[in-house]
Amino acid sequence: MSLTLSQKAKSVKPSSTLAITAKAKEMKEKGIDVVGFGAGEPDFNTPDNICNAAMKAIREGFTKYTPASGTNELKEAICKKFKTFNNLEYTPSQIVISNGGKHGLSNVFDAILNPGDEVIIPAPYWLSYPEMVKLSDGIPVYITGSKEQGYKVTAQQIREAVTDKTKALVLNTPSNPTGMIYTRKELEEIAAVAVECDFYVVSDEMYEHLTYGEEHVSIASLNEEIYKRTITCSGMSKSYAMTGWRIGYTASSVEIAKLMSAMQSHATSNPNSIAQKAALEALTGSQDQVKYMCQAFDSRRVHMFERISKMPLISCIEPKGAFYVFIDLADAIGKNYKGEVIADAAKFAEILLRDFAVAVIPCADFGFADHIRLSYAISIEQINKGLDRIEEFLSLLEA
Amino acid sequence: MSLTLSQKAKSVKPSSTLAITAKAKEMKEKGIDVVGFGAGEPDFNTPDNICNAAMKAIREGFTKYTPASGTNELKEAICKKFKTFNNLEYTPSQIVISNGGKHGLSNVFDAILNPGDEVIIPAPYWLSYPEMVKLSDGIPVYITGSKEQGYKVTAQQIREAVTDKTKALVLNTPSNPTGMIYTRKELEEIAAVAVECDFYVVSDEMYEHLTYGEEHVSIASLNEEIYKRTITCSGMSKSYAMTGWRIGYTASSVEIAKLMSAMQSHATSNPNSIAQKAALEALTGSQDQVKYMCQAFDSRRVHMFERISKMPLISCIEPKGAFYVFIDLADAIGKNYKGEVIADAAKFAEILLRDFAVAVIPCADFGFADHIRLSYAISIEQINKGLDRIEEFLSLLEA
Repeated sequence: MSLTLSQKAKSVKPSSTLAITAKAKEMKEKGIDVVGFGAGEPDFNTPDNICNAAMKAIREGFTKYTPASGTNELKEAICKKFKTFNNLEYTPSQIVISNGGKHGLSNVFDAILNPGDEVIIPAPYWLSYPEMVKLSDGIPVYITGSKEQGYKVTAQQIREAVTDKTKALVLNTPSNPTGMIYTRKELEEIAAVAVECDFYVVSDEMYEHLTYGEEHVSIASLNEEIYKRTITCSGMSKSYAMTGWRIGYTASSVEIAKLMSAMQSHATSNPNSIAQKAALEALTGSQDQVKYMCQAFDSRRVHMFERISKMPLISCIEPKGAFYVFIDLADAIGKNYKGEVIADAAKFAEILLRDFAVAVIPCADFGFADHIRLSYAISIEQINKGLDRIEEFLSLLEA
Repeated sequence: MSLTLSQKAKSVKPSSTLAITAKAKEMKEKGIDVVGFGAGEPDFNTPDNICNAAMKAIREGFTKYTPASGTNELKEAICKKFKTFNNLEYTPSQIVISNGGKHGLSNVFDAILNPGDEVIIPAPYWLSYPEMVKLSDGIPVYITGSKEQGYKVTAQQIREAVTDKTKALVLNTPSNPTGMIYTRKELEEIAAVAVECDFYVVSDEMYEHLTYGEEHVSIASLNEEIYKRTITCSGMSKSYAMTGWRIGYTASSVEIAKLMSAMQSHATSNPNSIAQKAALEALTGSQDQVKYMCQAFDSRRVHMFERISKMPLISCIEPKGAFYVFIDLADAIGKNYKGEVIADAAKFAEILLRDFAVAVIPCADFGFADHIRLSYAISIEQINKGLDRIEEFLSLLEA
């Protein structure tokens, strides 16, 4: 037999957000003053109390294997968070702690999908969902939450997409890349479809703490029937400025948790023991820093939305959660920049980085080829500098 | 569609070593003085210089995302280690850093296997290999390294197992669970078969630093043809007492590294950033602690082998690497203990834990149902106490 490689592995698209970030980094290393709106992580340091707990764990030799699905004390803290913050009852046997939120999600798809099973993914979507589903032998089925719908899909749209192969729906609220939040009423309607048509809901609530005036509702909390069908996914990265630590978690039926735990015991073993102690402090210690970061994001959000709303050729809906502004370029696309046609968001982003040293994420891989995503997880000074440059770029576009 | 689960996930055997360890832990919590020979991890703390580097990383805010496949500085240190320790030339683009050795291995199988591909696994084998292969849609094909062969397989046996579906051979030297080391000549013969029949060698060298008087040879270092076909896998866990930190790595062709890196970018993202800094110090700092730990393991090994060799009904071959003694129970099986028949190693281990408070690993899931594995990653006092109890148990067995 020859040295062929996995067809499935070869079909994986490398993350395009990382490509832009790499290019921006290269320019920075050459001394160019790049403004990076690409970041998918808080610009704040991990809060001191969390860092101190981690250093204590190291000093005390908490550097050995833990149970593959995480320590019981951290599972208990996660259950308590679910109870107080999400109004959800889970026991430690329902929790699996993984190497970051991505790992939790890919474990879920591995646990529930058989070859050919369909997973409904509302666009715009976080770009890793389709790749994860495909790696677990599933088939992504896309439905679109248009700008007019606030980038959210309706229960009716979901119902129309259901076939006899539908295994799950991916729900992401607050949303990356749009910053939109599903209301309780919208979730009730979606839950009713999931129960009626009997499929799972994979609910990615990674940004649950980053909301600005709107309520975050966990779909699993709505009633007993949807609770049974939901795998609630979250993690420490975004709310606690802990991206590098890699701690995510899922809450599901005991049966699914057992499957995920068994797979994880062979595929990776436990997540980093020290990061588990850090996560324990994050969940059980003071939440002041979370509030502080959330307020900082909020004031940047308001400022950024105001400025972008006044710009020509681009537009956006006010984001209500996470730390992204999702920008519609429809009126800029087709325009000319010094003889180059802005064919799509990728071209827009390419020129913006090349000639104006501003990195933004073009969203074709998020299902919207005429939109870009800007993160406000950077300082207000950087935001203003970057938006000035974008304004300049827009002023140079011609019909 | 109903709420079914993944057939593949349901077929995964939860790790049986963890079950024994859990039972032993439960007994300890009840105040029972259990001697645990089950441990697959050094009893030493992570060396101070490594802990200090990690704490420095935390203090300096190195707590953000890194590239998904790991930092360039750590990849460079790994390449340097390959050059000086393994006589192997790799560049950073060939290295993928993962969440522990297991994760590296499962990434490899995901990258090279298509459904139905066969992977030759020599028994006795580390129990996760078959599960990993099955999770990657491959088919494990077992060949047996008998006790007479020193628990090693021959090139001839491998050749006889090759079919037109053979995609890879798993090689583990020094071996878990046997402690055996393949010689340069044996590896040359195996390499010749791999090149002739054109399949990959997945070479798990996790215990490479833990050898006692015998040379560790990396099969990829033998010649250019086998280098091209080998994925060399290792990690920090065993050699540096860093089990909880979860840093493993692989070295392969650039093409395979790219696939693994793309999959990892969606499935887990980067391994813990702080652990990467710790691993960097481990590889580039003083190696004195590694030598110290290795010498401690060696003296325990000699002592344990001597004592076990004198016991009735059980026997073993002197282990040359890792920190395990692989014990043949053939003469104990079929014997009676107070009316109970010792049907297999599982029964032997069950009674030993229940009535003598000694935890050992029965090796059915390692492919040898009449053997047990004892770790000597525990103190000499514990070793003696445990062996005393095993002697007592053996003295009570009747025909």
